[in-house]
Amino acid sequence: MEQQSAVDAPPSRRHALGVEYDGSEFSGWQRLTKHGEPERPGEETIQGALEQALSFVAGHPVETVCAGRTDAGVHASCQVVHFDSHALRDPRGWMLGVTSRLPPSVSVRWCQPVPADFHARFSARARRYRYRILNRPVRPALGRQYLSWDRRPLDADAMHRAAQALLGENDFSAFRTVHCQAPHARRDLQQIQVRRDGEIVEVEVQANAFLHHMVRNIVGSLLMVGSGEQPEAWIAQLLAGRDRTVAGPTAPSAGLVFLGPRYPAEWGLPAEISQ
Amino acid sequence: MEQQSAVDAPPSRRHALGVEYDGSEFSGWQRLTKHGEPERPGEETIQGALEQALSFVAGHPVETVCAGRTDAGVHASCQVVHFDSHALRDPRGWMLGVTSRLPPSVSVRWCQPVPADFHARFSARARRYRYRILNRPVRPALGRQYLSWDRRPLDADAMHRAAQALLGENDFSAFRTVHCQAPHARRDLQQIQVRRDGEIVEVEVQANAFLHHMVRNIVGSLLMVGSGEQPEAWIAQLLAGRDRTVAGPTAPSAGLVFLGPRYPAEWGLPAEISQ
Repeated sequence: MEQQSAVDAPPSRRHALGVEYDGSEFSGWQRLTKHGEPERPGEETIQGALEQALSFVAGHPVETVCAGRTDAGVHASCQVVHFDSHALRDPRGWMLGVTSRLPPSVSVRWCQPVPADFHARFSARARRYRYRILNRPVRPALGRQYLSWDRRPLDADAMHRAAQALLGENDFSAFRTVHCQAPHARRDLQQIQVRRDGEIVEVEVQANAFLHHMVRNIVGSLLMVGSGEQPEAWIAQLLAGRDRTVAGPTAPSAGLVFLGPRYPAEWGLPAEISQ
Repeated sequence: MEQQSAVDAPPSRRHALGVEYDGSEFSGWQRLTKHGEPERPGEETIQGALEQALSFVAGHPVETVCAGRTDAGVHASCQVVHFDSHALRDPRGWMLGVTSRLPPSVSVRWCQPVPADFHARFSARARRYRYRILNRPVRPALGRQYLSWDRRPLDADAMHRAAQALLGENDFSAFRTVHCQAPHARRDLQQIQVRRDGEIVEVEVQANAFLHHMVRNIVGSLLMVGSGEQPEAWIAQLLAGRDRTVAGPTAPSAGLVFLGPRYPAEWGLPAEISQ
């Protein structure tokens, strides 16, 4: 006799979603209440908003797993999540239906069916972030939602050279917040580039994974090199010292965008997030 | 006997300012109340906010003249204004002092003393605008404040070719709103480019001056070519017909940024706004 589910529900199917959000008015990615419970005003999370929209479209409670949790105020151009549902909808139906139930600051860029062993977090081989600093005497008005600001003239080339000391598999204790819950601080930092485009200084970084506040703490320390307060060699010293208390301050959340994870090409996901 | 002012006030000095703003929450550039009167909530203007800040810093009422008035919801990366004041402040003092009295959506990028015959509007030889459309099935979340959205696949090359019919000195009646108060509709359109960068279609246009809603009406018509609803030759026909009622709809304000005017190099203004 074949195994069957007690009720005649269709089999559950796993989908991946590419999600874009402006994190300005969210308390970060991670839902703080129990699944299905309403979030308090001013404490809404992106996960909470997305699961509410997904559950409405699915007609049953849906939970999500994301590639990389982002903090309050941090944005994403391609967060990836997976979810399971037995609702019969095609990818376009999920994308448009869920987006129509989301606040204006969140949208679903694409939806794709994936094998049941795909996992948004554990299947990812790398994550990429971008940090943008407006470098001029006065604060930003246009685009201020997506920029941090430094009025001191910054030497982006010095920042770039100093940053190269972080490449490779290292203990990043100097750049993790005390609230970081990761069991260890070893991460493989694969690329880091600092470049200037007019008044904007941009830091782009890729690692297998990141510690809590790691990008913003690296940027905060690089800014001390860029402004001339610290020599280029200081970044290598910080890394070696593993002491968070001597590194630069945490750079503000507004400048940070999670560009997305990278998955092995075998999963057949969009090129932007494949490697 | 030499002429002297009745009181011993220092002579008035003219300054030019480069102003950046996010127009999302303003009723446009132009002050709607009498100078010095408070604006009603929800009807604030950029001119009103700027003159209030300037008057506070100057210690006397200050009025401004701008290079190009922008509509409700339209942004500017370098609006230029001039004002006269006998307050003794250096350019940096004006820039920082005024910015500190402005809402977060407005800032003064630079300030420069100019001769008394400089006029922000009449000295300008050209104005430049940029319009950005996100072209994909779902609405923008990240950067939505600065984008319009079109879900139909757009042929940017066809839009570019069609747009070239607008070049030169022409009667742009087909692209002016009925509310336009300009005495005639002849304008010299000097450059227009349409290009695609990933999901973004960008229109950049320069003319000696623009009619009311002219950029947004041109974009609205170009979108009908880009989507295939109208042939490329339609833009030339619209221009020749001078009939607003047959052209495309006015494109939404959010996608439009006033990049700034252009002045003859003799004024010695920043390179970005000199020609």
